[in-house]
This record gives sequence, structure tokens and C-alpha cells, in this order.
Amino acid sequence: MIPAGLIGYGYWGPNLLRNLQLSGRFEVKGVAELERERLDLARRAAPGARCYADALELIERPDIAALVIASPVATHYPLARAALERGKHVLIEKPMCRLAEECQELIALAAARRLALMVDHTFLFTGAVQKLKELCSSGALGKVSYYDSLRVNLGLFQPDVNVLWDLAPHDFSILDFVLGAKPVHVEATGHCHVNSNLPDIAYVTLHCAGGLIAHFNLSWMSPAKVRRVAIGGDRQMVVWDDLDRDEKIRIYDSGIRLHAPDERFAIVPGYRIGDIHSPRIPNTEALAGVVAHFADVIEGRAKPIMGGEHGLRVVRMLEAAQAALDASLARVRGLS
Amino acid sequence: MIPAGLIGYGYWGPNLLRNLQLSGRFEVKGVAELERERLDLARRAAPGARCYADALELIERPDIAALVIASPVATHYPLARAALERGKHVLIEKPMCRLAEECQELIALAAARRLALMVDHTFLFTGAVQKLKELCSSGALGKVSYYDSLRVNLGLFQPDVNVLWDLAPHDFSILDFVLGAKPVHVEATGHCHVNSNLPDIAYVTLHCAGGLIAHFNLSWMSPAKVRRVAIGGDRQMVVWDDLDRDEKIRIYDSGIRLHAPDERFAIVPGYRIGDIHSPRIPNTEALAGVVAHFADVIEGRAKPIMGGEHGLRVVRMLEAAQAALDASLARVRGLS
Amino acid sequence: MIPAGLIGYGYWGPNLLRNLQLSGRFEVKGVAELERERLDLARRAAPGARCYADALELIERPDIAALVIASPVATHYPLARAALERGKHVLIEKPMCRLAEECQELIALAAARRLALMVDHTFLFTGAVQKLKELCSSGALGKVSYYDSLRVNLGLFQPDVNVLWDLAPHDFSILDFVLGAKPVHVEATGHCHVNSNLPDIAYVTLHCAGGLIAHFNLSWMSPAKVRRVAIGGDRQMVVWDDLDRDEKIRIYDSGIRLHAPDERFAIVPGYRIGDIHSPRIPNTEALAGVVAHFADVIEGRAKPIMGGEHGLRVVRMLEAAQAALDASLARVRGLS
Amino acid sequence: MIPAGLIGYGYWGPNLLRNLQLSGRFEVKGVAELERERLDLARRAAPGARCYADALELIERPDIAALVIASPVATHYPLARAALERGKHVLIEKPMCRLAEECQELIALAAARRLALMVDHTFLFTGAVQKLKELCSSGALGKVSYYDSLRVNLGLFQPDVNVLWDLAPHDFSILDFVLGAKPVHVEATGHCHVNSNLPDIAYVTLHCAGGLIAHFNLSWMSPAKVRRVAIGGDRQMVVWDDLDRDEKIRIYDSGIRLHAPDERFAIVPGYRIGDIHSPRIPNTEALAGVVAHFADVIEGRAKPIMGGEHGLRVVRMLEAAQAALDASLARVRGLS
Repeated sequence: MIPAGLIGYGYWGPNLLRNLQLSGRFEVKGVAELERERLDLARRAAPGARCYADALELIERPDIAALVIASPVATHYPLARAALERGKHVLIEKPMCRLAEECQELIALAAARRLALMVDHTFLFTGAVQKLKELCSSGALGKVSYYDSLRVNLGLFQPDVNVLWDLAPHDFSILDFVLGAKPVHVEATGHCHVNSNLPDIAYVTLHCAGGLIAHFNLSWMSPAKVRRVAIGGDRQMVVWDDLDRDEKIRIYDSGIRLHAPDERFAIVPGYRIGDIHSPRIPNTEALAGVVAHFADVIEGRAKPIMGGEHGLRVVRMLEAAQAALDASLARVRGLS
Repeated sequence: MIPAGLIGYGYWGPNLLRNLQLSGRFEVKGVAELERERLDLARRAAPGARCYADALELIERPDIAALVIASPVATHYPLARAALERGKHVLIEKPMCRLAEECQELIALAAARRLALMVDHTFLFTGAVQKLKELCSSGALGKVSYYDSLRVNLGLFQPDVNVLWDLAPHDFSILDFVLGAKPVHVEATGHCHVNSNLPDIAYVTLHCAGGLIAHFNLSWMSPAKVRRVAIGGDRQMVVWDDLDRDEKIRIYDSGIRLHAPDERFAIVPGYRIGDIHSPRIPNTEALAGVVAHFADVIEGRAKPIMGGEHGLRVVRMLEAAQAALDASLARVRGLS
Repeated sequence: MIPAGLIGYGYWGPNLLRNLQLSGRFEVKGVAELERERLDLARRAAPGARCYADALELIERPDIAALVIASPVATHYPLARAALERGKHVLIEKPMCRLAEECQELIALAAARRLALMVDHTFLFTGAVQKLKELCSSGALGKVSYYDSLRVNLGLFQPDVNVLWDLAPHDFSILDFVLGAKPVHVEATGHCHVNSNLPDIAYVTLHCAGGLIAHFNLSWMSPAKVRRVAIGGDRQMVVWDDLDRDEKIRIYDSGIRLHAPDERFAIVPGYRIGDIHSPRIPNTEALAGVVAHFADVIEGRAKPIMGGEHGLRVVRMLEAAQAALDASLARVRGLS
Repeated sequence: MIPAGLIGYGYWGPNLLRNLQLSGRFEVKGVAELERERLDLARRAAPGARCYADALELIERPDIAALVIASPVATHYPLARAALERGKHVLIEKPMCRLAEECQELIALAAARRLALMVDHTFLFTGAVQKLKELCSSGALGKVSYYDSLRVNLGLFQPDVNVLWDLAPHDFSILDFVLGAKPVHVEATGHCHVNSNLPDIAYVTLHCAGGLIAHFNLSWMSPAKVRRVAIGGDRQMVVWDDLDRDEKIRIYDSGIRLHAPDERFAIVPGYRIGDIHSPRIPNTEALAGVVAHFADVIEGRAKPIMGGEHGLRVVRMLEAAQAALDASLARVRGLS
């Protein structure tokens, strides 16, 4: 068992703790958390672990080999750097850091010390995303022409993160992992409704190499939660509705055929509407897979699926989208 | 009964003919259609009417008082002008014309001759849009902050219209009619997948006066048809799913409350999730209402709900969106 | 074109008239209808046809070869007999007659005169039921063990028909056509909520040869309309939701495996949950197929799919279910 | 904290253990379980508790005041009796016992010793059933005329329980709690597809005092899981879909109005179709409420909502339905 510590016991921390405990691969020896009440909860949930208000005390412990960092985004870089410098393997909650250059520094540090450095893009370990990856890699979809994501809900407003940094990491991570997308041009716009400095609605469009267009509709202002991603290829198309209990993935055997240019009326449309297939998606907890993979990477049994480089590419896309969003907001402000 | 003629018997023509016949307000005395096969169908469906290959012959008939124009968009302006010049009342299929200045000319001509000039934005007469109008006008939603439309399907590819001109008129028309939106800045992007000159995916964002943001996701490349519009206010929010048989309109008694700035974790989120209410929407055919309204306007019993000015505002928004879309496509082409 | 007459212009009559007209196989020369207002509607919809208040006048016309009977159930037998006696081919709305012996008489009469005799069980010509038939006949489902139908809505209360005779004909007809079910024992119960002599809720169970069990939940008291039939085989199972726009038929690659008898806990359940497949169902109007088939049968080009014998078997099942329902209602009345 | 023991660590045991631990009202001092592997799991989950292969050793412990019994149904009666005789408060998993007379004996024993005796009909503590209770008690639904339950899934086959005893307790318990239903006559039928002695499909109809009819469609043979209960009153109707994430309860403002008897055609149907309302249902874990209620009852702060008498009434209905089911199965066997 790998002796491990957990930093941050907020929203995601309890899930990390539970999966570390159940994995049979890690022994959780310490938990660090600034808020007293949260720390008390951690104490009850992890009777064998020591609790810290100061994360650095936990990082200093020589008997700990791995650290899981689930604290606010701004703290990811200093805590991860401190941990790597002390020779600990590190799993960081997504997004990896606030800046691409911070990610690069961590990557270099981990490489120099031969330490595992991973980012917890949990979605990549869900059955649904694994299936999307399989459909795209196997050529079942044909040439992929678009990725369209509707990712909206009510809240969760956080003081240190806007809607882009809250929701887009999922889509950027999937775009990179599933489609290997290379953005050529990024556009973004949105609005700050509740807090005038914090966008709570954002629309992002990525024009990628090879003619792929990706669009995300991200909102904290939607009364109904929607998690719907459509991916269209020239052979098949797929819709992933993550909130559908029984049929998360629907594969459409549908396609488009160009009309002859002289046709006047589109009465008989040139598209093919075919069967729909919903493959069975195993209903396992993705985070359990993340934790097991982290152990495998530490023990040298696997290369990281979502290592530092993946985390860096996601942060780069976030930076580009943020810059485009800022420019659009400024332009609109100037006009009103 | 108002003696009337119908120009164009393509996709929408049969619906117009049937509703004119059933209305008890119009007598259809002639139908014009270029394509021979379609004209034969019209002949069987309207035994009492005379059929024309040349629309101008129909327009010339002195015994006809009203003309309904459902021919391709490019022909709207010349045909409507010819009809107005001969003193006929005119109902034009949406979009009104290809250019705003064409619309303005028709408006002036109709005003000078005191003729009815209407655009068939059918959606405005659906029970669902009437209910949206009521919800917004009555203040039930409070201050409206966003309009978000997902309007996608497979095809219909038409040689003379791109996805923007095919699908966006619905949203522009509703934005104008329901919310009286005044766009300040328009952004658009998209892609041409099937035909390199014809966008088949378009994303449009309108920044409107008063902080309203409107977004449309328009696509001819989606395997599943979706018609979903969400409108969010600070009192209530509403989702209109036009393909839901039983609950087209869902009103969410949900809202957002700003967090105190010093909160660290959004564990207890500052939003209100409340009941959902689906008002009964009468299941009547909207086009029957359009036709009856056209008769009322001709007979001086009503002012047009969707007269030339409404049609013009829609075309102006289409022009602005098209310009933004063209600019984005050119930018991306330059980068690839 | 076969010269034809239509008797009854109530709820279903307009659909029959339209499909007869559009078929290109029949010329509708007369329509009979008792109610004056309905007859006026028929007159407008069928300008070339003569209209009758007395159906017998229409039946007497020597220039008519085929009659379609869509009048109340109690009149089916006398009208069909009169028509057959005068040498007319007959298509009767479902259910065929009120009594099995009436059906038998009509069958004998039609056989003696070599006339077409068909019952309009429209559902058999839907793409969905055709697909169910294909799935069962091809062995795709394996041995079928159950048929389960939930067929409920609000109303339509009719003075001459109870909920059993209104809704069960669909299921009996499909059971006969798709599965060739041979009922061994019929149970039924229900309740009369609105009209004390007219059951508005009925539950019917058929125990059929070969271990097939069929159950129908029929109601006029449900606020939401449901049309859901599940058919389970030992290889695959299928759910037909007739109100689902996109996926009417879902085929489940799921099954059951017997547990070893000594297992104590069903922690690892012995069933197989597999993929779901929704075959594309063509979206054509079933009644057009019925009408074309009627013409084919008259012209000797096809054997009737739903001839008198099929109609008789459905009425026999209705009689058996009605007897069981009556017995149960009487028993409960005695106890209360 | 009430010192407590848990008997049975199978399917439901872990949920009971977790909620006892989290409640802050009980201290779990012992867990008994026959199967060695399951007992090992219990040991890890309850580090402070002692583990027993023999439940009687746990029952004998003088330091334990309350026992929760989640072992197979056949063992409920002997274990509960032993516990009550030793002065322990008892919470039994549903169904309470195999026989009504066993229930009566336990009730008498608990009354004599002034001990708490409760049955874990968890559903009664869900937000949905609480809302149904409120709707029925407040008169919002008016006079209730039917209760219709579709409760089907694939498996879980258990050697000691048939589909009736597995699924019907939910409906009987809700009927008793929500509607206070008094069955006058019980009908049941079904089939044994997989195991010739164990019904895996059952249809149950209860005719109750006051004209209420209740019907359950229970199956272990359905590829899709459904949990749908409709309750119809003469003022409103309600549909409870327990698998709907966002709208578990839909209240229909719909109703029926008797037609005038002389109407021939039901063209304008005499029913009212109104709005639909989905009240917000709090998303709390029902079992936490059960456990807290058990503590309250033990401490004399509450009367049991689902005490022995409630459990007895459920078992009586199960016995009546089982007798009817057996009779029907025997009748069918005799005919085949």
C-alpha cells in the first residue's frame, strides 16, 4: 500500500478519500484542510489518518509517498511544487494550474525527479468517455466534423473560478483525449449576470486542424441541468447524455449526402436516417479508476493517461478561451 | 370571402393552401408554380383554382385581392413588389426578403397604397410562443437575462439558403416579438462541412440592450432533431421544448442568489430550486391563426402582429449575423 | 379505380375518406352519415360524392363495388350483411361485430359470394407492428414468454362501447397477428367509475398455449396518455412506445439466467443486461396501407392480412374477456 | 447513543449500517452474518463492532438495546421474537414476517414489554411518498378512484422470495399509509417463467372499500426498470415516476365529466385537460429518516409511523394476494 496524503476536504475531497480507502492500493495517513468544520468531518471519515490545518506540515512528512491535491485552483501550483520538491508523487484536481507556465514547471520538476504527476480529469475514466474514445479511434464515426457540448446547470458559483474554468475543463480534456483536437483559432463570448466580474455564461468555439469545429455552451444560469455532447462524423454520429440513466450513449446510423446543385426543392432530402444503437455502459465509479491508475503509474506499471502534458494542454485551451472571452466582454462593454 | 392566389407549391405551399381553404375567409382562385409535377398536385388539391406556371399571370388577375408568396427567398421581393403595385394585399413566407432595403421598399409601397403586408412567421401563432409572450410581458419571469436556443436537425439542405437563413428567422422573430430585443453587438461563427460555400452549422450570439444575451446553436448536421429554447429571468426561468408532446413549456420556479464574497466552499449553493409548472398549451394549428389574422388585417379589423416592420427587423438581424459569420469564416480560412 | 362508398363520418371517417381519395385506387362515389352537421362536412371534403342520411340507399347503388363501414359497432353486422348480400366488398372498422356469431355469418356470406371481407385493424399496418412481427417471426426474440400492454388515456367515453371494446381490440389483434397467440384461459377485472354500467378501467390477463402470458392495463381515467407494449423472449426483449417520436421500438439484448439453487444472496444477479437497439421505423401512414391492401384483396392480388377470420378471433377474445370482466364486477358488487 | 446490533449484512445491510453510523443516535456494537465473506466486509465497515456468525450470540448481549433485522424473510419471526423476549427494541426489514399470525405474536410481545417494534418500509420516508400522502390527505386529489402501479425490472431473483413478496410490499405499504385502503376483494394471477415454482410475473388487483381499485403489475422479467404509480382522484391525478431525476411527482389538473347520454359521437370529449405541476421533492436519503424515527420511537418521542400493525396489514394483503395467485396458477395448470 502506498502511503498517501490528501490536501483539501471540500466538495470533491470526500470522494477522493473514499476511493483512496476502498482502492486497497493507498493508505491515507494524513488529511489537510483549512476549514475547521470540514477537518472535523475528515477526522470522522478517516479515523487512522492525522489531520492538519497547514498543508505544508503534511507535505513535509517523510513517510508519505503520494499526495492528492484537491484545494482551490490557485493553490495547486505552490502545493504541487512543494510536494514534488520533497519527492512525492502528485495527483492534482482539474484544472491543473491557473497558468500554462506553472504546469510546465511542474512537468519539468516531475520529469527531473522521475515522479508521477497526474491531473484528475475524472470524466476520462467514465464508461461513456471510454466508449466515445473507442468509437472515434476505431473509425466507427468516420471523419469527425463537429463536437457540440451543452453543459449547463444552476450554480455552482465559486468565488475563485468562473463558469469557463468550472465547466470547460471537461470538454477540453475530452476533446484532447478522445479526438486529439488541435485548436487553430478560439472564439468565446459570454456574460456576467450575477457578479459583474465573473462570467456565469460562456460560449466557446474552437476551430481545429482538419476542419473539426467544437462548440461549448456553458452556463450556471440554467434551471435544468443538462450534460449533452454530440459528436458528428461522416459515417455515424453519437449523442452522449450523461444524465440518461439507461442510455447514456446513442449512436446514430445517420448521415448526410450532398444534393445535386440543380435541385430546386428539398422535398426528398439528401440525408440518411438510420437505426439508433445504445451500447451498454458499465456503471462503475470513474474515480475508482483514476485512483487505481494513479497507483499503477506510481508503481511503474502504466503510463499516465492524463499526465502533466494533458493537464497543460487543457490549461492552454482555457487560457486561449479566457483571452477571447475577455476581449469579447470588453468589446460589448465599450458598445453599451 | 377574399379572392386569393398562392404563389409557390413547394414544401410549405400545401399547408398554406389547406389553411386558406379551411379558413372560410379566402377563396383560392389561382395557384402558380414553376415545377410541372408540383403544379399537378396543386391542381388536384384545389379543383376550383386555375393553375399557372408563370406567377406574373396570376398577379395580373384583376379579380384577386390577396396574394400569398411561398416561392424561394430570392423571388420574394420582385413578386411582392409586383403584387403591391397591382393593389394586392400580400403575405410573404419568412424570411421576408434577402436584403433589408428590399423590405423597406415593400413597406413603403404597402403604406402608400394602404395594403396589408405581412410576413408568415408562423411560430408567433403557436400556443407555446403566445405563452412565452405572456410570461415575459406579465413580468412573471422578472428581468430576462438570457435567451438560449438549440435548433438542430439533419438537413434540410437547400441550394438557396444556408443554415442561418433557414433556422435563425425563428429565433430572431421570437426575440423581437416576445422580448422586444434590441441587439447592440452580434457575433457569429460556424462551418461549411458539406458544401464549401454554404454554412451548415452556425453559432450566433446577440448582445442586446439591457444586458440580455441571446445565443443560437443552429445545425443541419445533428442526427437528432432538437428544438429547445431556454429563457432565464431573475424571478423564473422557462424551457420550451417544442418536440415534447405533453409539456412544451416548463416554468421553473428557480433562481440565483449572490454568495457572500468570503465564502470559501460552495457547499451550500446560493440558488433556489423550486417547483416546475407546465401550463396546458392548446394544440391548434398555428398556420390557421396566421391565415385568419391576414384576413382580419385585410378587412381592417386588426393591426398586423407580424407586419413589414417585424419582417424588416428580422432581416436586419440576419444581415448582421451573416456579416459576422462571413468574417469569422474568412478569419479561420486565413489561419488554416 | 374501384367505385366505393363510405358509411359513417364520425371520428375515423375523415381519415378513411382522405386515404381512399389519396390512394388512387378508389373513387368515393357516396358517403352516408346520420348526423346532419357531419354530413355537411363530408360534402365539403368529397365534392364529387353523393351524400346520404340513410346508409341503405348508398348500399343499394348498383354502381358501387366496395363499402367501408365506420359507423357505431352495433350497426356493423346489419350494414355489412346488407352490403355483402348486394355483392359489395366490405371493409369494416374494428371491432368487426358485437358477437362472434355475427362475424361467422358475415364470413360465410363473403365466402359464398367470393367477396372481400376485411376488418380495419389499422395498427397491423404500422411500421412498429410490422417490425414486431418480423422480430417474433425471425426468432430474434427467442421463445416469447410475455406480452404486456399499458394502454391508457383520458376518455374517449363513448355511449356504445366500454374501455375493453375501445382499447383491447388493438392488443388482441396484435397478439393474434404478431404472436399467433391461442388463449387457454382469460381473466379480467376492472371498475366503472364514471358511468355505473360502463367499465372505464379494465385489467385483462390471457394465459395462452405454450406458456405465454398476456396482460393489458386499459384505462380511460389516466391523465397522461401511454401506449407501451413490452414483449419478452428468452433471447431478446422489446419495448414498443408508440408515442416516442424517435425510438418507437427498443430491442433489449437482455435476458435471464437461472441462479444455482444454493445461492443465498442475489448480490451478483443472474441476468444479462446488454445493448439497446432502436431500429428505424418508417414514418408512413398506416391507413394508407390498409386502403391499398383492401384494393389488392378486391382485385385478387393479395390474401387479406386481417380478413374476417382475424376479426372473428379478436371478437371471440373480446367476448371471453367481457364475460370474465362481468363475472368479476358482479362478485365485487356482491361483496361491497 | 442507543447501543445497537445489526443482523444480516446482505443486500440492504450495508445501507442500514451506514445510516446507523451517520445518524449520531445509535452506536453499532455488533453485526451478525452467516456468510463469511460478507462478515469480513462488515468488519472493515464497522471497525468498532464485534462480528458474529451466530445471530443469537448478538441477541444475547445485555449491553445492546436495539436490534435491526435484515436477514432472509423466513428468519424474521424467530430472530425478532428472541430479541423482544430479551427486551430489545426491534426494527425488521420488510416484509415483517411470512405469516400474519407471526406478526400478531410479535406485536403482542412488544406491547407486553413496552418495546419499540417497527418495520422498515423505507419508501414511506421518501419525499415522493410524503408528498403523495400530503396530496391525498389534504383533499387536493378529491375522492381517489384508482391506484395503478407498474413496478418491473430484470431480476433480482431470490431463492426464498417470489416477485409478489419482493415488489408488492412497497405498494401495499403505500396503499395503507397514503390512502388507508381497506381491501374487500383481492384478485391475482401471474406466471412462473424461470423457476417453475416461483412466480416471476404477478398481476394483483385490490377492490377496496369506497370504490377504490388498486392494480399492481409486478415483474422480474422486464428489460427496462420502471417504477411508475398513478393515483387518480376526481379533482386531480398524480403520476409518480420514481426514476425521473427532476420530476418524480407530476400533478395533473385533469378530470372527467360525464357525457350527456344522448350524444352519439365523442368528438368533443367530456374531459378536462389542464396544467401539470411538478413540486420540488427534497433529495434526502429515506433510510436516514427511518433510522432517526426508530431512535425517536425508542426514546418515546414519537409513535411509530410503520409499527407492527402496519407491517401486519401489509402481510395480510400479501397472504390474500398469494392465495389468489396460487388459485389462478392452479386453474391455469389444470387447463393446459
